[in-house]
Amino acid sequence: MEALKERIRREGRVLPGNIIKVDGFLNHRVDMKFMHEMAKEFARYFEGRGVTAVMTVEASGIPIASACADEMGVPLIFAKKAKSDNIEGGLFRSEVFSYTYKKKVTLIVSSEWLNGDDCVLVIDDFLANGEAMRGLIDIIREAGAKLAGVGIAVEKGFQGGGDRLRTMGIDLYSLAIIERAEPGNIAFRE
Amino acid sequence: MEALKERIRREGRVLPGNIIKVDGFLNHRVDMKFMHEMAKEFARYFEGRGVTAVMTVEASGIPIASACADEMGVPLIFAKKAKSDNIEGGLFRSEVFSYTYKKKVTLIVSSEWLNGDDCVLVIDDFLANGEAMRGLIDIIREAGAKLAGVGIAVEKGFQGGGDRLRTMGIDLYSLAIIERAEPGNIAFRE
Repeated sequence: MEALKERIRREGRVLPGNIIKVDGFLNHRVDMKFMHEMAKEFARYFEGRGVTAVMTVEASGIPIASACADEMGVPLIFAKKAKSDNIEGGLFRSEVFSYTYKKKVTLIVSSEWLNGDDCVLVIDDFLANGEAMRGLIDIIREAGAKLAGVGIAVEKGFQGGGDRLRTMGIDLYSLAIIERAEPGNIAFRE
Repeated sequence: MEALKERIRREGRVLPGNIIKVDGFLNHRVDMKFMHEMAKEFARYFEGRGVTAVMTVEASGIPIASACADEMGVPLIFAKKAKSDNIEGGLFRSEVFSYTYKKKVTLIVSSEWLNGDDCVLVIDDFLANGEAMRGLIDIIREAGAKLAGVGIAVEKGFQGGGDRLRTMGIDLYSLAIIERAEPGNIAFRE
């Protein structure tokens, strides 16, 4: 999506450790009008797949996933990160490794809100190594639901998570795929 | 807002410890169409106050705050909960006590995205004792920004946080104020 690439070029900053900051419009101060433009593009791409719910994981994926659920007229489900070992019953869960926090995190979704009739579109702001995505897909399978596909705003192509999902046959649509990121020089996959 | 009270009566569940669960439409599986109805009501109430940004704290307030920012045509800023002691510079921060997690949490907002020209409307899904709200208001004051007011979907009136804000002269608009909550019997403030 050219408008997103342009905005990353103009406003993105590259920090040490392959961190790409676009927090001025995507995931700290959020331009909701732009989220809806991206959401419309996801709605167009995934039209006709019978999507019954949009799913993401807290916290930074929620604005774009909210816009997407709104555009598609389906509920938004966000997986929570369990904060304690004292997790109640009636939950689908998946343990993932968080590179951001350098520790294991358990993603949880109440079994009340996801079931075998659902066809889920997973939406997130960033995809790097794909650990959180693996957790969400685990949960969808555990629920017996169908995965319609995955929509990502910014994929860090050089970290390989996206290509691993494609190899698994998952329909992954990323609006911008970054191949190389150095200060002042961000290169996109064509 | 009658539609919200009706939905709480119909779908809400009261759990031990004064926990009111409305996670089927508000904060786990989210009805975005309904979020926009509530957002329109906030937009109507706070019209003409010169709001330049909507602010909330991650994670469960983000869907309703997203809808509100979208309806008002201003950016959404969400405060993050710092996960480590290693917090970088250039941040406004406030330490609050989280009753959910029974520990102190530091709320942070990058000083890049909030400044003295801003007039901020704070939006959240729930207000109980008001600790998180106190933290957000601290951050707005630290930035030298103006607080336009506070909009809450569900206020737990019996926990006192809302009335403390009103005593401070803050314009707090809650769409539903719960005065008593027992299983099968939820009473609202008139």
